[in-house]
Amino acid sequence: MRDLWLIGIGTGNPDHLTRAGERALREASCILVPRKGTEKSDLAELRHHILRAVGATATVAEFDMPVRDESLPYHERVRRWHDDIAGLWRAAAAGAKGPVAMLVWGDPALYDSTLRIAERFDPAPRLRVIPGITALQALTAAHAIPFNTVNGSVLVTTGRQLRDHGWPEGADTVAVMLDGECSFRGVDPHGVWIWWGAFLGMENEVLVSGPLGEAGNRIVEARREARAAHGWLMDTYLMRRVE
Amino acid sequence: MRDLWLIGIGTGNPDHLTRAGERALREASCILVPRKGTEKSDLAELRHHILRAVGATATVAEFDMPVRDESLPYHERVRRWHDDIAGLWRAAAAGAKGPVAMLVWGDPALYDSTLRIAERFDPAPRLRVIPGITALQALTAAHAIPFNTVNGSVLVTTGRQLRDHGWPEGADTVAVMLDGECSFRGVDPHGVWIWWGAFLGMENEVLVSGPLGEAGNRIVEARREARAAHGWLMDTYLMRRVE
Repeated sequence: MRDLWLIGIGTGNPDHLTRAGERALREASCILVPRKGTEKSDLAELRHHILRAVGATATVAEFDMPVRDESLPYHERVRRWHDDIAGLWRAAAAGAKGPVAMLVWGDPALYDSTLRIAERFDPAPRLRVIPGITALQALTAAHAIPFNTVNGSVLVTTGRQLRDHGWPEGADTVAVMLDGECSFRGVDPHGVWIWWGAFLGMENEVLVSGPLGEAGNRIVEARREARAAHGWLMDTYLMRRVE
Repeated sequence: MRDLWLIGIGTGNPDHLTRAGERALREASCILVPRKGTEKSDLAELRHHILRAVGATATVAEFDMPVRDESLPYHERVRRWHDDIAGLWRAAAAGAKGPVAMLVWGDPALYDSTLRIAERFDPAPRLRVIPGITALQALTAAHAIPFNTVNGSVLVTTGRQLRDHGWPEGADTVAVMLDGECSFRGVDPHGVWIWWGAFLGMENEVLVSGPLGEAGNRIVEARREARAAHGWLMDTYLMRRVE
């Protein structure tokens, strides 16, 4: 594997692809696609849909995602899992004659493990990262809201961090990813507005916004309905203290 | 103005455009382009370059950016300036027969004023926001680094905030935009790594990274050289506490 390309593909809509991403998908020699494991079958199908949309002709090398060892402490569990995935990438790409590409949901830099997995190769491949539209960008676009207030700061964080540490000191805007547990319910809703979305940028996009006190319950309900309808869910949200 | 489209175009490279952005530029009836004012002529030319690259056929309506009244307090100054810009958009788009589009550097949600300007129209146009690649994404892609640590938070902030408040409590990663004053010089460099870039994603991209203590000086110098060579500069950086 001389060249490894991590290509941000957005949240599943082929229209999120950039011109750079589209060209890279056409120029890649081998495209690695996880078959199952942590992936739902809809998600695997979305990847193939994107490849068809851009007319990619590369060999598609599927691999099974390994299972995380839940008995290990969090960081150790993640590290071992990344080691395992790197081994599977190497095996799947073994016959590749040119650049090997990985499709990455959102942007390869944001709450994604592919950069950390790519570090594990020795010798190191030439790494190329192509940014993609993140769920947070699809969220603010769908609601037509700014990410930040004028000259304001935004804390980008995870559901786990929000549960462990509460509303961060001094922040007026908090953007939350990787939250499967509606952790906004632990936030004091006084003076806080929330904008939430699932399946962002897709046909089945669902949006809810309003004062956290009442919109929070609507989000819990909308998540339940979306999960029942599709069997899975990708969502994110932004909260802001308003005057 | 029945339809107003805010189209994120990335940091100046036409390859940052998404398929959705590209199509919107081709479908728009009128494209508003600021002629000068806060814009450098290179930047105005980059917009025209992007329009040519996608084969946009819309009427290009140029307008002069107003000057901010520096005698007013910060927030009042920004508010009045946005009012003035809204009036100029309205005048420039007066003859438009279809959707009016605005090209926005980066993403319309991130440290950009077009959403706030768009709110000033009465009656409100149908607003469509198309996300674009931000300078922060181009930065992390160019350095091939993750935005966040595993399960970590990132504070996205401005040079002004960093100067006024220092390193934010509890943050391990800080991403800084709108910093014309090398405000990283006010940060205790102990254990902090910095990744900086200017003209990100462009042919004349400049990158510097390293421990803040020594890389900081190289960045000050690189900024000076880039500004001398081009007459202007767009840059951003990310700092992280490392073990």
